[in-house]
Amino acid sequence: MAEAIRIIGIDPGLRRTGWGIVESLGNSLRFVAAGTVRSDDTLTLASRLCQLHGGLTDVLHGAMPHEAAVEQTFVNKDAVATLKLGQARGIAMLVPALAGLPVAEYAPNAVKKAVIGVGHGDKKQIHMMVKVLLPKAVFDTADAADALAIAICHAHHRQSVTHRLRLAG
Amino acid sequence: MAEAIRIIGIDPGLRRTGWGIVESLGNSLRFVAAGTVRSDDTLTLASRLCQLHGGLTDVLHGAMPHEAAVEQTFVNKDAVATLKLGQARGIAMLVPALAGLPVAEYAPNAVKKAVIGVGHGDKKQIHMMVKVLLPKAVFDTADAADALAIAICHAHHRQSVTHRLRLAG
Repeated sequence: MAEAIRIIGIDPGLRRTGWGIVESLGNSLRFVAAGTVRSDDTLTLASRLCQLHGGLTDVLHGAMPHEAAVEQTFVNKDAVATLKLGQARGIAMLVPALAGLPVAEYAPNAVKKAVIGVGHGDKKQIHMMVKVLLPKAVFDTADAADALAIAICHAHHRQSVTHRLRLAG
Repeated sequence: MAEAIRIIGIDPGLRRTGWGIVESLGNSLRFVAAGTVRSDDTLTLASRLCQLHGGLTDVLHGAMPHEAAVEQTFVNKDAVATLKLGQARGIAMLVPALAGLPVAEYAPNAVKKAVIGVGHGDKKQIHMMVKVLLPKAVFDTADAADALAIAICHAHHRQSVTHRLRLAG
């Protein structure tokens, strides 16, 4: 009997990093947990990165996911904002990789396509579809909902890859 | 008797992260070690960040510095390059912070001012002055030389802060 694969999606940000965990078994998806790791903006950058590292490490130890997925986010604002996001994203990718998890990356339009069926759409549509696909989902922030969308995207992609491998095998 | 303070300077980059360690005692500076941590660009981003993390962790465990300094670098190229640098920089700040070291940040012109006496100048001038200030310094890459310049900058700044505190005390 196939075993459920537990996937963590991560939406990185220096102030708030959203995370969401789903279980994928065959065609079915199940909500496991979601939440937000925050960093205190009165602290130094190094301390804030430690907070993100500590928070994500606790989530991984608690939920023991098998695979991770992170969005390939780009900020269009300015170099300072992009550098900040990059620093948080470095931690978001490092923590699951150090724990031995494969870490997949998805472009924003791939996440939208997986969740709402097309490669464009606003945040509200994504959050609504997350609730449709995972009726039991609860999330405290938009970042946690986005993280669940990334986890759903990875569940769809890994399933289609497995399906193709089976057809070819 | 005052004890020497061992400082690690880090010049972060995804492909090559330079590091340089100096010892500061009173007005004197001594070269300890310098080198470069590389990541393999045929691997996934998550694996490359693990390589940087592992390499820097090894350096810290081997040399046991007391304080760390990282340059506040900005890339003027594009958002993709800035995001890459940010990811590497996140790891460069996280590793010493997790080891309990205070992590200072310096703007590029502060580093130039500390090393060549003025806030502008090219890389060649910086590397030449690193050799003047640390006659025994050996470095394998320009990134390692830059990292030594950052460590020198921190040695100067922390000393003037200590001096001001003594005058005020």
